[in-house]
Amino acid sequence: MTYINFPPGRNFDFAAIGRLCIDLNANEINRPMEETRTFTKYVGGSPANIAIGMSRLGMKTTFIGKIANDQMGRFIHRYLTDNRIDTGNVVTDRTGAVTGLAFTEIMSPAECSILMYRDNVADLKLLPSEINEELISRTKMLLISGTALAKSPSREAVLQSLNYAKKHGTVIAFDLDYRPYTWTSSEETAVYYNLAAEKCDIILGTREEFDMMERFEHNPERSDQVTAAKWFNHCAKIVIIKHGKEGSIAYTKDGASHQAKSFPAKVVKTFGAGDSYAAGFLYGLIQGWTLEKSMEFGSAAASIVISSHSCSDAMPTSDQIKEYIGRCERGEIVV
Amino acid sequence: MTYINFPPGRNFDFAAIGRLCIDLNANEINRPMEETRTFTKYVGGSPANIAIGMSRLGMKTTFIGKIANDQMGRFIHRYLTDNRIDTGNVVTDRTGAVTGLAFTEIMSPAECSILMYRDNVADLKLLPSEINEELISRTKMLLISGTALAKSPSREAVLQSLNYAKKHGTVIAFDLDYRPYTWTSSEETAVYYNLAAEKCDIILGTREEFDMMERFEHNPERSDQVTAAKWFNHCAKIVIIKHGKEGSIAYTKDGASHQAKSFPAKVVKTFGAGDSYAAGFLYGLIQGWTLEKSMEFGSAAASIVISSHSCSDAMPTSDQIKEYIGRCERGEIVV
Amino acid sequence: MTYINFPPGRNFDFAAIGRLCIDLNANEINRPMEETRTFTKYVGGSPANIAIGMSRLGMKTTFIGKIANDQMGRFIHRYLTDNRIDTGNVVTDRTGAVTGLAFTEIMSPAECSILMYRDNVADLKLLPSEINEELISRTKMLLISGTALAKSPSREAVLQSLNYAKKHGTVIAFDLDYRPYTWTSSEETAVYYNLAAEKCDIILGTREEFDMMERFEHNPERSDQVTAAKWFNHCAKIVIIKHGKEGSIAYTKDGASHQAKSFPAKVVKTFGAGDSYAAGFLYGLIQGWTLEKSMEFGSAAASIVISSHSCSDAMPTSDQIKEYIGRCERGEIVV
Amino acid sequence: MTYINFPPGRNFDFAAIGRLCIDLNANEINRPMEETRTFTKYVGGSPANIAIGMSRLGMKTTFIGKIANDQMGRFIHRYLTDNRIDTGNVVTDRTGAVTGLAFTEIMSPAECSILMYRDNVADLKLLPSEINEELISRTKMLLISGTALAKSPSREAVLQSLNYAKKHGTVIAFDLDYRPYTWTSSEETAVYYNLAAEKCDIILGTREEFDMMERFEHNPERSDQVTAAKWFNHCAKIVIIKHGKEGSIAYTKDGASHQAKSFPAKVVKTFGAGDSYAAGFLYGLIQGWTLEKSMEFGSAAASIVISSHSCSDAMPTSDQIKEYIGRCERGEIVV
Repeated sequence: MTYINFPPGRNFDFAAIGRLCIDLNANEINRPMEETRTFTKYVGGSPANIAIGMSRLGMKTTFIGKIANDQMGRFIHRYLTDNRIDTGNVVTDRTGAVTGLAFTEIMSPAECSILMYRDNVADLKLLPSEINEELISRTKMLLISGTALAKSPSREAVLQSLNYAKKHGTVIAFDLDYRPYTWTSSEETAVYYNLAAEKCDIILGTREEFDMMERFEHNPERSDQVTAAKWFNHCAKIVIIKHGKEGSIAYTKDGASHQAKSFPAKVVKTFGAGDSYAAGFLYGLIQGWTLEKSMEFGSAAASIVISSHSCSDAMPTSDQIKEYIGRCERGEIVV
Repeated sequence: MTYINFPPGRNFDFAAIGRLCIDLNANEINRPMEETRTFTKYVGGSPANIAIGMSRLGMKTTFIGKIANDQMGRFIHRYLTDNRIDTGNVVTDRTGAVTGLAFTEIMSPAECSILMYRDNVADLKLLPSEINEELISRTKMLLISGTALAKSPSREAVLQSLNYAKKHGTVIAFDLDYRPYTWTSSEETAVYYNLAAEKCDIILGTREEFDMMERFEHNPERSDQVTAAKWFNHCAKIVIIKHGKEGSIAYTKDGASHQAKSFPAKVVKTFGAGDSYAAGFLYGLIQGWTLEKSMEFGSAAASIVISSHSCSDAMPTSDQIKEYIGRCERGEIVV
Repeated sequence: MTYINFPPGRNFDFAAIGRLCIDLNANEINRPMEETRTFTKYVGGSPANIAIGMSRLGMKTTFIGKIANDQMGRFIHRYLTDNRIDTGNVVTDRTGAVTGLAFTEIMSPAECSILMYRDNVADLKLLPSEINEELISRTKMLLISGTALAKSPSREAVLQSLNYAKKHGTVIAFDLDYRPYTWTSSEETAVYYNLAAEKCDIILGTREEFDMMERFEHNPERSDQVTAAKWFNHCAKIVIIKHGKEGSIAYTKDGASHQAKSFPAKVVKTFGAGDSYAAGFLYGLIQGWTLEKSMEFGSAAASIVISSHSCSDAMPTSDQIKEYIGRCERGEIVV
Repeated sequence: MTYINFPPGRNFDFAAIGRLCIDLNANEINRPMEETRTFTKYVGGSPANIAIGMSRLGMKTTFIGKIANDQMGRFIHRYLTDNRIDTGNVVTDRTGAVTGLAFTEIMSPAECSILMYRDNVADLKLLPSEINEELISRTKMLLISGTALAKSPSREAVLQSLNYAKKHGTVIAFDLDYRPYTWTSSEETAVYYNLAAEKCDIILGTREEFDMMERFEHNPERSDQVTAAKWFNHCAKIVIIKHGKEGSIAYTKDGASHQAKSFPAKVVKTFGAGDSYAAGFLYGLIQGWTLEKSMEFGSAAASIVISSHSCSDAMPTSDQIKEYIGRCERGEIVV
C-alpha cells in the first residue's frame, strides 16, 4: 500500500533545511577526550548528514541553510558541492556568526558523548525571508529537523518553509533530532515541536522525543498508539517511533504498524545511526517501496555508518547498502 | 443564522490572555506631550480593556496574564478585582520585570500618539507552564491579542493556550492588535500571526493588519474575499475586517458579508475604539444575537469610549450602550 | 584655607555629566502609589538636579549627556535651555532608547520610595567618542555621578571624561549617588566607583556609600578617618561623608575635619536633599568661601528642596537660600 | 642598573591572570584551512603560554583563571598541573560556559591566521570575588594580558587584581595582547587598556598596540618617546615597544633606551613569538639580569617557539635557550 504520494514533475527529489556544522571526531578512540590529542574534521549536523546520504543514494538533493563566512563555512560549502548537493539556497552569514562545532568523544562503542559549540552559530541565523519558495515548489520532499527550531530567526525560517511546502504540495518529513542545549525550556521545546509536527506528513523520532512533545498532554503509559493517533488527526500519514535496541515501528493512518528486521554491525560509535536510517528509509519511500523494505534499507545504512569513524563521510551508496545486506544474509557480518 | 456555537456548562463566559499595562493619559489635551505636565493613570492594554468591557457588560470574566511585583502591578490587580474580573490566573513576576507603560498624547481628536515603555515588561514574561488548562476548559470564549505573541515566553504561553482551547472546545477570538515595537522583523510577525490565526474561530483586525499577515502571499488587490477565504480553510467562522471610516465588514464561512451602521461621537481621541468595539461585538455573539446586531452594539460602545478621556475606565455597561443608541436614534448626538 | 584652586580663564563654571531623566511625582501624597491617580512630570536625575541648582545660583553651567529622541527627551532639552544650561554636548540618541523614569511615592515625609524605569535608557548610551574634550578644557569644575558608571558605554564615557579633566586641570567632583538597580553585582560597583574616585578632587557620599566602596578592604570600624586617608593617597583634597541626621563632615588633606550647622525644614519628602546640598556646597567652593560656609549654604538649599514637592523645580537661587537662612536665624522656621 | 625591585620573601615568583584556552593547530601546514583535515590540541592563550614558559624556566608559577566544566577545561587543568603550575586559583565555571578555541591556519611561515571561538567562554567569566588577594600578596610578579579586559566580569576581576597587587607591592607586568574580537568598540578598548596600564610597572606591546591606546591623544609621529613618557608619569619603570622585524626597544624611566640582538630561526609560523619573548624577558628581570641580557634571552626563546608547530608545548627551558644561543653564535643556525 502507498502511504505517501509524491508530486510529479519536480526538479529535486529532496531538500533538507537546517543545521550545517563541523564534527571534530577524536582520532584516538576508546578514551576520554581529556586524553585525546588529534581530531579529524567532517561536515556534520543531522539534516546535512541526511542530505549527503540522499545524494549518495542518487537522489537530486538541495539544501536550505546558512554558513559562516569563514574557513569552516567554505569547507562545508565545498563538501556539499563535491557531493553534488545543490547549494543555491545555502546563504553566507554576514553578521560574524561562527560555524557550529561538535567534538565527539568515543569512550567505548556504547559510551559516546558530544561537546557542542552552539553560541552565535550561523545555521540558527537563517531568516524567513531567505527561504526560496520557488525552490520548495520544485522539490518532492522537504526534510526539517528539530534543532533548527531552537532559536529565532531559524525557528521562523523553518515554520515559513512548512507554509511553502503545504502550499505547493511538497511532502514534509520531520526528523525530531531533539538536543536540549540551545533551547530555553522544555515547555518552549514542546510548543514548537508540536506546532511544526502538525504540518508534517512523516514524523520520525525516538520514544523519548515523543514523550517530550507530550509534556502538556496525558499519555501515562507512553503508548505509541496514543502518540500516533494524535498526529493522524493532523497531517501525518506515517509516524516512526524508535525504541532503541527493540527496533523501530512505523505506524500508519490505516491503523497498521510495520516493523523490519535490523542488521548486525561491528559498532565503532552510535553517532549517525538516526541520520543514515532516515536517509535509507526516505529513499525507499521515494522509490515507492513498501514501508518494510524502506525500513530495512534504512537499518542497513545505519549499520554501515555506526561501523565507521565518521557520519557524513560514511553515508553509503545504494550498492554499498545492498552489498551489506547481502553479506549479512550470507552470515559474513555478525556482532 | 448562528455562526458560533458556545460550549454549554462553563463557569466563565470570557477569558482574555495577554497584556496588562498602565496608560498614563496627559491631562492637558490638544497639545504635544512636550507641553503637558500631568498624567492620569489607568489600567490599559488591549486584552485588559476588552476584559473590563466584557465584565461591565455582565459577562463572567477571567484574565490570564502576568503583572510586575510593584505598585503598578498591584494597582492593576486591584482594578481587575474591583471590576469583578477573576484573577486566579494573574501571576506575579519574580524576576524584576516592570509594568508596561503607554503615555498617550492627544494633539487633536484625529492626531494621537503613544509613547510606549515595553522593555523588560512583566506581561511578556508569562510562561507556557503558567497557563491553567482547567480554567480554559471552564470558559466559553478565549480572547488572544497579537502583542502577546511579540516575545518569548509570552509567545509560547499564548500558543499553548490555543492548544488547550482547541482541546476543550473553547471558542477562540483573535484581536490582531498589531504594534510594530517589540517585534524583531515583519517576517517574524507574519509567521506567528498566521500560526495563531490558523487555530482561531473569530478574527478581528484592520485591513492593514491583514495585509501584514499576507506578506508571504499573493493578494495584490488587497481583497477582503481572498483574505477571508484563506482563514475559512483553517478554523475561522467569522472574519471581521475594519476599513476605518468606511466601517467594518464581517465575512462568514457561508460566503455572506455583513455590515452594520455606525454611530456619531464627539471624539476626544481615537484610542480604545477597537477594544470597546470588540467587547460589544463579542458580547452580542455570546448573547446569540445576529452578527448585525452584535456589530451595532460594538460600534455604539466604541463611540462612547472615544468620547471619553480614558479607555478602560470608560468601558460602558449594557444600559449605557442602549441609552447611547437611543440618543443617537433620537438625533441627540450628532458629530 | 583654600583647599581647591580652580583654573582661571574658563568659559564655564560648571559641567555635569550623566543621567537626565524624568521624575513623575505623585500628586496625592501621604499614601501608597497603588492609591494615587495623577503624576506631575519634572526633569530629574542627580547630575541634572545639581546642574539646574548651579545655574539657578548663577553659575555658567553646561551638561554632557544623552537624551531619547522622543517627547520626554525634547521636554528635558527645553527645560535645560529654559534654565540657561548650555546643551551643546547633550546628544540625541538614535537607537530607539527611552527616557529613564522615576515614579516617586511619598507615603510620609520619612517614608519615600522610587519606582525606576532604567531598561534601555538613553542616558546610559552616551559614548566615549561623544565627550567633547574641548568643552571640558573650558570648564572650571566637572561633576560626575555614580549612576552613569553603571553600564557601558556610559561607563567608559565618564571614565574618558575624567581623563580629559585631569589632562586640562579641570577640578573633578564625584557625587557617589549609588543606586543598586542597573548594576550587575556589588563587586562590579566597588571596582568602578574606586577607579573613578581615584581621579577625583572632591568626593561626596553617605557613610553607606563609602562602605560599599570598601568591600574589598579592611575598615571594620567604618572609620571616616580610614576612608578619607585612602582617598588623600590618590587625588582627593576634600572628602565629605554624610551621616544622615548627625550631619555631614568634610575631611581635608591637612588632617582637619569640618562640620557646619544644619537648618530646620517642614519636610514634604527626602528626595533631592543630596543634590541641592551638592549644588549649594560646590557653589560656595567656586566662590572661594570657607568649607564651613559652603556646607552651611548646601544645608540651607537642601532644607528648601525637601520642603517642596519637586526636586529640580525647587532648586533655589542664592537670594532664596540667603533669605531662608535669615528666616531660620530669626526663628521663623522651626520643625 | 636595576629598574625593578622585586619584593622579597614570596612563595611564588610569578602569577598570570586571564585567558586559558585551547589551540587547535592544523597538522597539514602551508595550505588554507579549507583544505586541512586534522588538528592537534594544545593549551593556549597568551597568559597561559607565558606561565608555562616561566614554569619551564624554573620559576615558581601560579595561575588565576577560570576553566569550563568540560573535557577541554579538564585537559587544561591537567596540563597546568603537569607543568608544575599551581592551580589553586583556577576556578571551574558552573554556568555552562565553553572553553575558548583558536584554530590556527598556517598558509606559509609569513601568512598565518586564527579562527577564534570566543562566545560564552569560561575565561571571561572570572569574577572579582574569585581573585585570591592572599595569593597575590605572596607573589613577586603579576602578569596581566589585554584580552582579559575585553568583557565583564573578567574585566573587573583583572582591575581588582591590580588593586591587590599595588596594595601588596607585587610587581605588575602588562602584556598588551590586543585582539579586536570580543571588544565592543575601539574607544572602549582604549579606555580600559589605559586604566590598567596606569597601574603597571612593565608594559610590553607592539607599536600598533600603543597607537590604539593613544586614540584619544595626540602623538601624530607615533613617537616611542612620547608614548614611554606618558607611562613614566604613572607607575611604569620599563616600556617595551616592539617594531616587528626592526626589533624591540626597552625604554626606561631614566631616559635610556635599550636594544638587544635577535636570533635567526627556521620559521614554521609566527604564533607564540610574543609569549615566549615575554617569558624569557621577565625571567631575566627576576634573575636580576640587565635589560639587554633579559631581552636577548627573550629573543632566543621566541626563535625556538616560532621554529616549532605549537606554542605552549614548545616553550623552552633555560638550558634549551642557552644551547640555542650557543648554536646561533657558532653559526649552526642561519635563516
